[in-house]
Amino acid sequence: MSITSVAPNTDSLQVTWDDGHISHFHYIWLRDNCPCADCRHPQVGERTLDPFTIPLDIVPEEVKLDETKALNIRWLGDGHQSIYDSIWLRQHTYEPEEKAARRYRHTLWDTSSIGENFPEVTYNSTMADDMGLLTWLRLLRQYGFAIMHGVPTEPGQVAKVAECISYLRPSNFGTIFDVVSKPDPNSIAYTSLRLNAHTDLVSRETQPGVQFLHCLVFGATGGESLLVDGFAVAEELRQQHPDDFDLLTSTPVRFRYQDRETDINCKSPMIRLDSDGEYFEVRYSTALLAPLDIAPELVKPFYKAYHNFTALLRDPKFELCFRLEPGDLMAFDNRRVLHGRAEFNPQSGPRHLQGCYVDTDDFLSRIRVLERQLVNRA
Amino acid sequence: MSITSVAPNTDSLQVTWDDGHISHFHYIWLRDNCPCADCRHPQVGERTLDPFTIPLDIVPEEVKLDETKALNIRWLGDGHQSIYDSIWLRQHTYEPEEKAARRYRHTLWDTSSIGENFPEVTYNSTMADDMGLLTWLRLLRQYGFAIMHGVPTEPGQVAKVAECISYLRPSNFGTIFDVVSKPDPNSIAYTSLRLNAHTDLVSRETQPGVQFLHCLVFGATGGESLLVDGFAVAEELRQQHPDDFDLLTSTPVRFRYQDRETDINCKSPMIRLDSDGEYFEVRYSTALLAPLDIAPELVKPFYKAYHNFTALLRDPKFELCFRLEPGDLMAFDNRRVLHGRAEFNPQSGPRHLQGCYVDTDDFLSRIRVLERQLVNRA
Repeated sequence: MSITSVAPNTDSLQVTWDDGHISHFHYIWLRDNCPCADCRHPQVGERTLDPFTIPLDIVPEEVKLDETKALNIRWLGDGHQSIYDSIWLRQHTYEPEEKAARRYRHTLWDTSSIGENFPEVTYNSTMADDMGLLTWLRLLRQYGFAIMHGVPTEPGQVAKVAECISYLRPSNFGTIFDVVSKPDPNSIAYTSLRLNAHTDLVSRETQPGVQFLHCLVFGATGGESLLVDGFAVAEELRQQHPDDFDLLTSTPVRFRYQDRETDINCKSPMIRLDSDGEYFEVRYSTALLAPLDIAPELVKPFYKAYHNFTALLRDPKFELCFRLEPGDLMAFDNRRVLHGRAEFNPQSGPRHLQGCYVDTDDFLSRIRVLERQLVNRA
Repeated sequence: MSITSVAPNTDSLQVTWDDGHISHFHYIWLRDNCPCADCRHPQVGERTLDPFTIPLDIVPEEVKLDETKALNIRWLGDGHQSIYDSIWLRQHTYEPEEKAARRYRHTLWDTSSIGENFPEVTYNSTMADDMGLLTWLRLLRQYGFAIMHGVPTEPGQVAKVAECISYLRPSNFGTIFDVVSKPDPNSIAYTSLRLNAHTDLVSRETQPGVQFLHCLVFGATGGESLLVDGFAVAEELRQQHPDDFDLLTSTPVRFRYQDRETDINCKSPMIRLDSDGEYFEVRYSTALLAPLDIAPELVKPFYKAYHNFTALLRDPKFELCFRLEPGDLMAFDNRRVLHGRAEFNPQSGPRHLQGCYVDTDDFLSRIRVLERQLVNRA
């Protein structure tokens, strides 16, 4: 992608590209993003230029394309020179349609559509090299989950796999947690009860991003795993009950977790969209929803919307149900794909999963760095 | 606080209290929050009642106050009985004025008002008992920072102090980080350059909540610490430049951090209000603000607002400046109080701080649990 011409306007530069696209870059934006070693720390890459020193009405004294088609600007006033790489500039255009084209698109699924594309990998292929690792992470990003087969059934192995992505995110349940039926539980997870599909740690301001559950032992009857694509269900709610969708995306409700040592709560809508109106996260737990403290006139409409969302989350069309085998490691985007399990009979045999979390920031960072190394250089 | 009378309406119960306040509780809200052992797990405290099973139009068959003034309801239909403690009910009223009265209020400060109330404690008083610990944490919550004197100047001590609150939050800079001038820095923090007041890890979706910086050695000239109450400055901006304030609270902008191993970015407004319109957080770093990708027509107004906010953040009225001494441990709410340092001369002597983070969720949880144990039982 290269620049064919530039034309100065009053407060921005018009840039025409060889695919016909026309971009505008404000002069103050350009000056603020000068990549030279005086404006950005040459090792650290952080901006050292103090943006406060840039006149708000800055304009160029001279603008030209050099022999490499890089954009050269000499600024009026202090005569500072800035040189912008054309590929970098195109990657940072801020017209809405260009931004939309750069967005990542998830693949939403239900139980019938996921059948043909079931995201699974093997431990050996993932561990073989960085491309194996990237393949797994991309499946996980695309579908919101992926099953890895053949993971050695040793305690602690779940952390070794997750640490291929990043350091782990600790919580009040520890860094690695054992999902077994316990005599003195501090969460329903640690009983043998059915768990309807939910997201984990809903009471925390930021829910853990990727959850890893590694099946070590499974002799019990029952206890099948459930996964539901929360974004697909939210989209179905939007189609069937748009008013309910609007309420659940716009009304922050409180979630709370308490035990002897901990008392955590936060407020968030059950379905969150980002600033572009795209799906950002689902936060859902009937166990941990606190007493509603929303505007009184919204209480009844909220319960109606919550019921309708719940009905769809439990619809067999969306509820994927399967049995983990020892050696399977299920990874999923805890903020998109809800998980649960069928009730199991702890008398019928053991069931032991180990789990841990990695934050979304670090998961996406790993993909970006791997792509920088493996894909973009190709 | 006790209930003097109850009166059923069509879809809610009117409750009159002995201070004259009148509350309304929707029937579906009451049924959903039944505290009995069938509806909430008796050990775990989580809701086991499936809210999906409650008819949206549920009404009571009988409502009465029992001899302890607890509210008793028998529900029409299945005849389930619910008993609600009056203190619990009053704590969970959801009229806007009651919610507003329950809100925590921070004390905003500038350099003149903080003088008389400078929040400082000693290591010995904090470590003496839980009340000493709570005193420190409450100062930190109220002013957004507190200085602890007399902390043993041993490496790792910062973690021991922070772990009195919670497990630590790791980041790509490690769990404990050493703030020293490094030959191959991956952040300006690890140089000897001036750092204008900023918040840490702005490129992460959730900025670390409480930051701890422990001064181990400080022989260098320069390097004084800066602290600025971001909420006080935001309030000043709101008064002086309301349009700028509106833009900075409503326009998510991207922050990005990159090094060889990491590539993290997120979008957030520089000033975030919560759903009640109260100050929630400030996110500010001139070094890590990514090239703006906001609507083109907002670029110039944004830079103007950013300039005006920056001017106030650097106003001596708000910029508290002091020198940490070895043994001082500065803790601050990284999402409210911006921190920085003057340039120092690494040739003039050593400067070594150690730092770590605890998340806001866990910081506030610790206060709640301590208050439950120490204050509320009194």
